[in-house]
Amino acid sequence: SRSLNLAVVPGDGIGQEVVAQGLKVLNAVLPQDVKLQTKEYDLGAQRWHRTGETLPDAELDSLKQHDAILLGAIGDPSVPSGVLERGLLLKLRFAFDHFINLRPSKLFPNTATPLAGRPEIDFVVVREGTEGPYTGNGGSIRTGTEHEVATEVSLNTAYGVERVVRDAYERADARPRKKLTLVHKNNVLVYAGHMWKNIFDRVGQEYPEVTTDYLHVDAATIFFVTQPERFDVIVTDNLFGDILTDLAAAVTGGIGLAASGNINPTGAFPSMFEPVHGSAPDIAGQGKADPTATVLSVALLLRHLGFEAEAVRIEEAVSADLAERDGGTTRTTDEIGDALAVRVAG
Amino acid sequence: SRSLNLAVVPGDGIGQEVVAQGLKVLNAVLPQDVKLQTKEYDLGAQRWHRTGETLPDAELDSLKQHDAILLGAIGDPSVPSGVLERGLLLKLRFAFDHFINLRPSKLFPNTATPLAGRPEIDFVVVREGTEGPYTGNGGSIRTGTEHEVATEVSLNTAYGVERVVRDAYERADARPRKKLTLVHKNNVLVYAGHMWKNIFDRVGQEYPEVTTDYLHVDAATIFFVTQPERFDVIVTDNLFGDILTDLAAAVTGGIGLAASGNINPTGAFPSMFEPVHGSAPDIAGQGKADPTATVLSVALLLRHLGFEAEAVRIEEAVSADLAERDGGTTRTTDEIGDALAVRVAG
Ligand SMILES: CC(C)[C@H](C(=O)O)[C@@H](O)C(=O)O
Ligand SMILES: CC(C)[C@H](C(=O)O)[C@@H](O)C(=O)O
Repeated sequence: SRSLNLAVVPGDGIGQEVVAQGLKVLNAVLPQDVKLQTKEYDLGAQRWHRTGETLPDAELDSLKQHDAILLGAIGDPSVPSGVLERGLLLKLRFAFDHFINLRPSKLFPNTATPLAGRPEIDFVVVREGTEGPYTGNGGSIRTGTEHEVATEVSLNTAYGVERVVRDAYERADARPRKKLTLVHKNNVLVYAGHMWKNIFDRVGQEYPEVTTDYLHVDAATIFFVTQPERFDVIVTDNLFGDILTDLAAAVTGGIGLAASGNINPTGAFPSMFEPVHGSAPDIAGQGKADPTATVLSVALLLRHLGFEAEAVRIEEAVSADLAERDGGTTRTTDEIGDALAVRVAG
Repeated sequence: SRSLNLAVVPGDGIGQEVVAQGLKVLNAVLPQDVKLQTKEYDLGAQRWHRTGETLPDAELDSLKQHDAILLGAIGDPSVPSGVLERGLLLKLRFAFDHFINLRPSKLFPNTATPLAGRPEIDFVVVREGTEGPYTGNGGSIRTGTEHEVATEVSLNTAYGVERVVRDAYERADARPRKKLTLVHKNNVLVYAGHMWKNIFDRVGQEYPEVTTDYLHVDAATIFFVTQPERFDVIVTDNLFGDILTDLAAAVTGGIGLAASGNINPTGAFPSMFEPVHGSAPDIAGQGKADPTATVLSVALLLRHLGFEAEAVRIEEAVSADLAERDGGTTRTTDEIGDALAVRVAG
């Protein structure tokens, strides 16, 4: 019989609430013969306040043993900005070499978008996850004085760029439209930008059926709101991907629906799945959070582990649920989770 | 009698066409007693192809003698990406210490926006112009091989941040809503981000009437499309400002309307005014370019040089022209310029 050994990191704010619904739907969709084991990890703001720890080595080692990680949200205003992000969330992404940060964007029918004319939106951003300005390189001197100088170093390697670019070509090649857009800023960030562009062009020769395109990041934001239908697969660096995927979430109905996977396709380490939204402390504990992004992240998790049919069942359930949503009534976090669990089981 | 000694850099693509209209409107709006002198500089792609030069020292020295610079657009696909941007446009911004990159965003009546519901948009982005990832710091080793490593260094100084932050507070304090939002990414770029935030908070103590707010850049893009009316003045770093102002232009009717000023408020060097749009080589020479962004940049130029009434006249003319635009007919670049010239003169 098959098994799924899942690490669960609810984290902060609404993390606990949405993760509970993700697990509910996971339980409902999994075939009977799959033995699901979950282990919850107490990581995040409370742990840090209690012990000063963000992600101890023992916990990291233990997390490594799982097939995958489901994460809710990390971050709380009571913790200085950067401590949990860098000490926990990014630490996981880097330690487990999650070089594919996968973020699909789709405008579901009946979902509110701020864009007039409801363009068709169905693209996926393949964001690099282990390099760029996220490496923690940088520092400051004369800190806090009028002579302070602070640097941030974006680190980019051919090895790191090639593997994410290749993954993006594979994904584009497998989609009907077969289109891949590189987003960077190679007219200003010429060293990193030209390396990205050269590797993008070189690897592209192996994918003759994929149509390619290049956009500067500033221009890309324009097309996200004026012509999002032009995008199919986008590959980009860690920081540009961070910015673009929040914008993508906004135009496809909000971060309440945006799922993501921090993926290590080699299988050397467990991949980690999380909603794009943060911990939203302002609505935490009130049953107001939309768990859909987490449920869709569970679908990405299942797909990654080979449960394709189950992933599709979840995505169809979400589609159907959204199609029947009615602007007038608001359901609780729990009610949305229940509705989705019923649908995937049915 | 007063005088205005203007340097004109038409540049590439549609630059020539739109700058001609900017000058037309400038001539029409200037009081009789102001003696306007213009000198055109041949800089851009053609010059580079002919001579290999982007911005020779002699030209830079000569530009320095003017009261201000009007620039059309820089960039052409025939020139490797980065050569003209860094060798000419950014070289000017850095050489003349244009630390305020001022980019107002306003949704004029009757202007198409991709946003449903036509929110009220009227904010100004104060983008830092001489630091951040734009300094040209960085490099690569083993270039072009599979072992290449490329870096980009974001350089930030307390001196540079404080002066732009202070300028932004002054601008916010002078506006009715008195609201200033800092945009950065201080949960990841902790060195630069914390310095920005600390300086923002400290300088803010001198402006007790200004309401302040902080947003991560990714979250800011969400609000640009879901709640743009929340912004009044935004202060941000060079790269985030680049990205956000293209998005701002997109939601307020497109880059055909977005003006900008590269300003050195000390007066030590001439400030430079340019439309946010690029050289648009695909429509160059066809009379299709909208010169409005250039005309609005001329308004910013006039305001900077103390011609406030004339700046307002241009802005009102643009407002009135846009209000009467009719989606059905398309006017040429020249016709729009003529219409605006007539209005400001009348
Ligand atoms: C919380 C933060 C560190 C994170 C990021 O910048 O990657 C978040 O914005 C995201 O997109 O997952
Ligand atoms: C052309 C390019 C160098 C420039 C920038 O990145 O600043 C442009 O995008 C702008 O916003 O003025």
